[in-house]
Amino acid sequence: MLQPAHPFDDDKLKEECGVFGIFHHDDAATLTALGLHALQHRGQEASGIVTYDGAHFHAHRDLGLVDEIFNAPSVIAKLKGRIAIGHNRYATTGDTMLRNVQPLYADLSFGGFAVAHNGNLTNAQTLRDELVETGALFQSTTDTEVIVHLVARGRGQNIQDRVIAALQKIEGAYSLLFLSAHHMIGVRDPYGFRPLILGRLHGSYILASETCALDIIGAEFVRDIDPGEMVVITQDGITSSRPFENAPSRFCVFEYIYFARPDSVMNGSSVYNARKAIGAQLAIESPVAADLIVPVPDSGVPAAIGYAEESGIPFDFGIIRNHYVGRTFIEPTQAIRHLGVKRKHNANRALLKDKRVVLVDDSIVRGTTSRKIVEMVRGAGAAEVHMRISSPPSKYSCFYGIDTPSTEELLAHKNSVSEIQKFIGVDSLSYISLDGLYHALGFTDGRNNSAPQFCDACFTGDYPVTLTDHLRGSCQPLKGSGA
Amino acid sequence: MLQPAHPFDDDKLKEECGVFGIFHHDDAATLTALGLHALQHRGQEASGIVTYDGAHFHAHRDLGLVDEIFNAPSVIAKLKGRIAIGHNRYATTGDTMLRNVQPLYADLSFGGFAVAHNGNLTNAQTLRDELVETGALFQSTTDTEVIVHLVARGRGQNIQDRVIAALQKIEGAYSLLFLSAHHMIGVRDPYGFRPLILGRLHGSYILASETCALDIIGAEFVRDIDPGEMVVITQDGITSSRPFENAPSRFCVFEYIYFARPDSVMNGSSVYNARKAIGAQLAIESPVAADLIVPVPDSGVPAAIGYAEESGIPFDFGIIRNHYVGRTFIEPTQAIRHLGVKRKHNANRALLKDKRVVLVDDSIVRGTTSRKIVEMVRGAGAAEVHMRISSPPSKYSCFYGIDTPSTEELLAHKNSVSEIQKFIGVDSLSYISLDGLYHALGFTDGRNNSAPQFCDACFTGDYPVTLTDHLRGSCQPLKGSGA
Amino acid sequence: MLQPAHPFDDDKLKEECGVFGIFHHDDAATLTALGLHALQHRGQEASGIVTYDGAHFHAHRDLGLVDEIFNAPSVIAKLKGRIAIGHNRYATTGDTMLRNVQPLYADLSFGGFAVAHNGNLTNAQTLRDELVETGALFQSTTDTEVIVHLVARGRGQNIQDRVIAALQKIEGAYSLLFLSAHHMIGVRDPYGFRPLILGRLHGSYILASETCALDIIGAEFVRDIDPGEMVVITQDGITSSRPFENAPSRFCVFEYIYFARPDSVMNGSSVYNARKAIGAQLAIESPVAADLIVPVPDSGVPAAIGYAEESGIPFDFGIIRNHYVGRTFIEPTQAIRHLGVKRKHNANRALLKDKRVVLVDDSIVRGTTSRKIVEMVRGAGAAEVHMRISSPPSKYSCFYGIDTPSTEELLAHKNSVSEIQKFIGVDSLSYISLDGLYHALGFTDGRNNSAPQFCDACFTGDYPVTLTDHLRGSCQPLKGSGA
Amino acid sequence: MLQPAHPFDDDKLKEECGVFGIFHHDDAATLTALGLHALQHRGQEASGIVTYDGAHFHAHRDLGLVDEIFNAPSVIAKLKGRIAIGHNRYATTGDTMLRNVQPLYADLSFGGFAVAHNGNLTNAQTLRDELVETGALFQSTTDTEVIVHLVARGRGQNIQDRVIAALQKIEGAYSLLFLSAHHMIGVRDPYGFRPLILGRLHGSYILASETCALDIIGAEFVRDIDPGEMVVITQDGITSSRPFENAPSRFCVFEYIYFARPDSVMNGSSVYNARKAIGAQLAIESPVAADLIVPVPDSGVPAAIGYAEESGIPFDFGIIRNHYVGRTFIEPTQAIRHLGVKRKHNANRALLKDKRVVLVDDSIVRGTTSRKIVEMVRGAGAAEVHMRISSPPSKYSCFYGIDTPSTEELLAHKNSVSEIQKFIGVDSLSYISLDGLYHALGFTDGRNNSAPQFCDACFTGDYPVTLTDHLRGSCQPLKGSGA
Repeated sequence: MLQPAHPFDDDKLKEECGVFGIFHHDDAATLTALGLHALQHRGQEASGIVTYDGAHFHAHRDLGLVDEIFNAPSVIAKLKGRIAIGHNRYATTGDTMLRNVQPLYADLSFGGFAVAHNGNLTNAQTLRDELVETGALFQSTTDTEVIVHLVARGRGQNIQDRVIAALQKIEGAYSLLFLSAHHMIGVRDPYGFRPLILGRLHGSYILASETCALDIIGAEFVRDIDPGEMVVITQDGITSSRPFENAPSRFCVFEYIYFARPDSVMNGSSVYNARKAIGAQLAIESPVAADLIVPVPDSGVPAAIGYAEESGIPFDFGIIRNHYVGRTFIEPTQAIRHLGVKRKHNANRALLKDKRVVLVDDSIVRGTTSRKIVEMVRGAGAAEVHMRISSPPSKYSCFYGIDTPSTEELLAHKNSVSEIQKFIGVDSLSYISLDGLYHALGFTDGRNNSAPQFCDACFTGDYPVTLTDHLRGSCQPLKGSGA
Repeated sequence: MLQPAHPFDDDKLKEECGVFGIFHHDDAATLTALGLHALQHRGQEASGIVTYDGAHFHAHRDLGLVDEIFNAPSVIAKLKGRIAIGHNRYATTGDTMLRNVQPLYADLSFGGFAVAHNGNLTNAQTLRDELVETGALFQSTTDTEVIVHLVARGRGQNIQDRVIAALQKIEGAYSLLFLSAHHMIGVRDPYGFRPLILGRLHGSYILASETCALDIIGAEFVRDIDPGEMVVITQDGITSSRPFENAPSRFCVFEYIYFARPDSVMNGSSVYNARKAIGAQLAIESPVAADLIVPVPDSGVPAAIGYAEESGIPFDFGIIRNHYVGRTFIEPTQAIRHLGVKRKHNANRALLKDKRVVLVDDSIVRGTTSRKIVEMVRGAGAAEVHMRISSPPSKYSCFYGIDTPSTEELLAHKNSVSEIQKFIGVDSLSYISLDGLYHALGFTDGRNNSAPQFCDACFTGDYPVTLTDHLRGSCQPLKGSGA
Repeated sequence: MLQPAHPFDDDKLKEECGVFGIFHHDDAATLTALGLHALQHRGQEASGIVTYDGAHFHAHRDLGLVDEIFNAPSVIAKLKGRIAIGHNRYATTGDTMLRNVQPLYADLSFGGFAVAHNGNLTNAQTLRDELVETGALFQSTTDTEVIVHLVARGRGQNIQDRVIAALQKIEGAYSLLFLSAHHMIGVRDPYGFRPLILGRLHGSYILASETCALDIIGAEFVRDIDPGEMVVITQDGITSSRPFENAPSRFCVFEYIYFARPDSVMNGSSVYNARKAIGAQLAIESPVAADLIVPVPDSGVPAAIGYAEESGIPFDFGIIRNHYVGRTFIEPTQAIRHLGVKRKHNANRALLKDKRVVLVDDSIVRGTTSRKIVEMVRGAGAAEVHMRISSPPSKYSCFYGIDTPSTEELLAHKNSVSEIQKFIGVDSLSYISLDGLYHALGFTDGRNNSAPQFCDACFTGDYPVTLTDHLRGSCQPLKGSGA
Repeated sequence: MLQPAHPFDDDKLKEECGVFGIFHHDDAATLTALGLHALQHRGQEASGIVTYDGAHFHAHRDLGLVDEIFNAPSVIAKLKGRIAIGHNRYATTGDTMLRNVQPLYADLSFGGFAVAHNGNLTNAQTLRDELVETGALFQSTTDTEVIVHLVARGRGQNIQDRVIAALQKIEGAYSLLFLSAHHMIGVRDPYGFRPLILGRLHGSYILASETCALDIIGAEFVRDIDPGEMVVITQDGITSSRPFENAPSRFCVFEYIYFARPDSVMNGSSVYNARKAIGAQLAIESPVAADLIVPVPDSGVPAAIGYAEESGIPFDFGIIRNHYVGRTFIEPTQAIRHLGVKRKHNANRALLKDKRVVLVDDSIVRGTTSRKIVEMVRGAGAAEVHMRISSPPSKYSCFYGIDTPSTEELLAHKNSVSEIQKFIGVDSLSYISLDGLYHALGFTDGRNNSAPQFCDACFTGDYPVTLTDHLRGSCQPLKGSGA
């Protein structure tokens, strides 16, 4: 119910990937499917699993939700083996895009090799152009395939060396899982933009994007993989190394604000508690005299609870979500469009009438959905409508693995807060301050501007890694990776 | 998010039907599909619409969710006409059951005739046997078809008279919509077990199960149809009559507790507010020293808010629901079953650890799900787990349109509260009292035992209408109607 | 290869049904599916089987070919029991029409009852109107359902009596199979328009439309059911009766010309040999100096062999059929249409060039296909093209179970042979004479005009049974039965 | 009807591919789909088309028949452009194999590049191993992809040079179509194993496997592409070159015997006439006193007509094929298997009874089907059954693009003619002689043993091109190309 990143939230930023791998378990494919199911919020449009059974690799990938793709015993049965890695991603429909569904797999000179990637490379197009020039055949349009080619052409003594050599050429955000006949490898880029954690289920090691993927199968959380760390799991156990130059950690702050599941724990902090703390901080920074605190479902729920507790104003569900909203629906005629049809939400009219209402949401992207929700709440008779946002204004595109509109399309890029307030039609609008956000996340002195504790480029434009392809002006960027 | 009756709540009672009709609108089929979409919680396994275009009747029915069935422009396009009625229902899969999907349609001597039914007849099998004996051919196994045969064989001057004559032979619970070339008729049985409301969209009349079906299309609520009332809508307007003998109103109290959508208003009372009031009453009746009030998602949410407000204990989401739970999934192996896989929910461990937790839910049917949830909450480290139920113990089967297990399967039928407490493994368990329930619903003196204000047979065994078929011992009862 | 009634022969008359039943065999459903497979040429658009397992009836019906509908072990597995009847039919697509797929089934007062019908009733609409007037609910739009209602309302002592009473009210063409818990009944109408034969597989009786349905399962042919005969098969054996007034036998002559499979034997005569004899008679009546006898595939093959043998002119495949023609295909653009695309046939150019060619076909309905074929043969360089037709001109619609265009659409209805010759573009055109046809079929004196040996209404307009509905001018006739 | 290579002929050798391309036509995709439809007999399990619209390449490939894959206007609509190449192939089902469906496509340094291949490379595995060793990523398991990698890594000045350089490394059988933004290239290997012809539709050039693909769209036949010839079609016209060393022409003789469509013309000879000539030669070599010449449908038809004409014995269809045989069907129980179910064929009993019958077929592979057919004909009462085969005994596997069982599985590999006669149960059996075959095909002196006019390795074991991979003992050969 508190799930962020719902597929039907048209105006939300979208996390682009989730990964899960398990080494040596009799039910490797089933557990991976369950792990991907728990990570569904990180990518809802395609999913895949690759396994190795000691002799052969097996793969199944398709467009759709995890439950739709891995719902037949026959599908699981063909994914034989005790090692598996899996991936959830966004992808548009169609023939072409099926080729992009991960994990990618290739037969290399040392044998089969599979990759699952969460993140986005910022120099992928540049590398791809060089590879094609020397005869490489690309089968997908993902940045991830660049990594596979680099490994294929590498000359290292062993797989780890070849992987390291390949990674040293790439730039950007990546939490990666690799699978070979004898290894499962996990790597986080030096800045650690995207999460990656290590778990254990009895004797079997697990690598996954979030802790909720451990909970679903009753596995134990071991630790976060560090930024810049590479772990290699074989039947002899796990080894760790740091093959990259040191870099300051810049974990994506939006994972706390919206992307991650509230029941996950990241870097030792509960995501749910972080959101409540942000809501409480918001109540301190931007109080308002009101009768009700109402979350925008479902993105604003924990922050609204935090705001309500801090302010002492009652928390209530003033907007009811319809659970059964499917993916497609009849095209409304113009006449129907005028009726203001509300398929996803309905105002809880009896609750809202004549009340002063504070709506709490995580962010405003284009503002179109916010505007409709405010209109609906006013239509239900609210006396006043205030909006409180649990992040600073979203002003810049993300190049590190989140699907954002172009900078120009972001409402906050060209509009002041008061313009936005007017656009969405509220009596007052406040965003949490940048320092307030850092404060709520445990940095009592706020943001360290000389060495920021998180990547907050979407609010500040302060991009930790050079945007090589973007600056080069590649007009057709590779499909957002991680991706 | 507050939606009750989620399709995946295996251990919840299930509302069996929702109906919607609109008279004279250019977009009759689309609006009916939207109305059914808003009523999806009343029946998730099949749906249908019948329209009339001035010359021909058109029908489309299928198994699945409304969004799946009416998602193609071509489907809506074939449902021509300005009058439409629609229906949501439960149904098991398969060839046979497709014949049971409503609205039922027949060519009678006066022309086409369609019916949509919410409720359940208690003498359907008896009537059916008589009809078959005299040569009637039944095409479905629903009780509703009995009504169609009775109308077909009726001898009244006009349709209304034939409908009335037919209804005078049937017993049980029914909120019915009929459609002919010139009429849309709505009727509620004399006891008014199931809801039926009247709305208006500009000049077009609407009949629907709940007000949320008006909200979705921006229509105006006019009034509830009264128990025992029949309204006939033609192009000349609407007329009302009361063709039955008077009976005391016995509206289903469980509509307030769980079935109806929280944003609906029934008999002038907000369902959401009613649930909060029940939760508050429960806090008064059964307080407990605790740190957190946690709703069982999603059935316990408003009652938990009410309980929290009354008790002053913080409300928090200690159980996180996975939004993406599909209908089918891989069969877990025995090994996996032992892991205690939790596909639907996850405990919010960081929140629950070392806390005294009060779980709030609407009811306990078989107790199996409650038991698992308690185990999960304990597994997350809760210091104490208490359970508060916002209805009295469910002890008797419903024969008026709700899909309940047989009386024997109901946990509370043979077990005391302390036995149930032990079974589900909580430190304390309390149900709201019967009088407390009535009190929370506005009857300050509680239940009027000589003339109860609601049907509460599921708690008391006090069945307002004789169970003709049941007492006759028909071993193969007709498929629960309304149904 | 010699199969008539190919689904893709757009301009051929279409047989409307095939029936098959077997009484007491462990593999009743499988054998019925095989029998229907052998009868596929009699109806390619829908198929169904009803079985009885001693306790329950089971049904499976769908649109499509037999191999598509009964291709899953799970489908056959659910058709339990040792008695089965099945049916192939034409049907247009869509929801409505699925209800028309036979066998029809109903629960009557004496128990389950199923019917499969080959033929067409000529007073079905009249009877239906009477039935609806007295409250009968029709679930299909087939004439066959009229029979079910008549049986349901019958008052006879036993099933046979009720069936006989029902049949005495109907008029037209019918070869019927009935199934009840204890009986399989077969009946042919008094004129015997459509075929029905009796076979035996070890101890199990079989009723089927044609002998080829016996051959496929290795069953033995016993005899033809006589016109006006009713056989009742129970576990005690088979009994025969003649419940109708005597009528002269009027078997459909077109079964010999085109409808039946060439490997079937009807009334003691091989269909293949009959077609060759007709071809030989045609060669005698209408010789022509030519180099090649070329059949129009596949309808003209045996007659062409007969013509070739009689004339001494070589038989050769001058037109090649593409075996892989599917049901649907891309819409050709106007430009492509001009290319004269020939997806179904190709001229065997090397064979036809500079030759005088005699094309042999079974009939000309609208003439559109014939015209294209002639054009194709001329385009391949034929010096002369002659057409010989193995039936007299088709001038009148059939009302006895064959799907024909209305009389007005039949090319021969308003056009002389020389006009048709001109329209299709041949150097000469001859049809077999009516007497020649009867002669070839073994009646050396030709047609007995005072008591014709066959129904030849499509050539002569001499309809043996009054066209009650047609004369009454019912504008919306029931869906062609048998049908 | 005369179609060889029917998908349901289980015991026939199978042609593995057909190709079609058209340069500069507004309806390029539609015409290619039609051409592939006409070439359906060369590969029935998968099909694909790649087009270029002046800016982008478009592809659609799927498993199934051409009519199933290209049946939607939306599919054709997305295949924009005025240049297209297409391909039919065999493929087993499943995820993996979809990657093998041709045309293959890749983005090379000079732009998009697509390939369609009919044939089989004999050194593909050897080349692939070398390529993988140097970092090439293979996306399919086809030999054809080797060619794409060789072109990708080539260093020629232009596409033609790179294609030539690549082809100089490959060995085996290939008729290839290449598509780039500016070129359509056609090549036949030096021996010309597989056919490739040039046609023209107004101003547009066409390359295709057989002339029947020209006939279907009304295109004009220009000429055969010569063995070892490469034609390059651009908007400036067509140029021809011979980039390979000279080699003797060794066209596959089985194209005449069975693979090609009878209405095609190859190397100036009608396939239909060739088959009749072989049948006539067989009658001269192996006469027999008989009453009827009966073709095994459909593979033996033209040869049977030739045999009948030469011998003066009547030709008749003694075996009737069921046109509606689908791909899958119910699993017969053991009991049913004993009935000798004949779903595909039925004996024309009335014709065969007491006759001396000569069955004519094109070949015997494993002999299992022949045996069943003979048994069926005897069961229908034939007095004698003789078999005449229009090819010499099939003793050796093909490595040049035909799907044959391994040599060990070929009945004639280890059995003499008299042993085969006994196995299939005929009164006499004769194959055409090798010299007789060459004679019938126009070489009056028979086979030139020092320089054979055809590839007849399947009869003689005389393989024109070294079997590099086979001799190297590669245990997992690449999926038969062309293929």
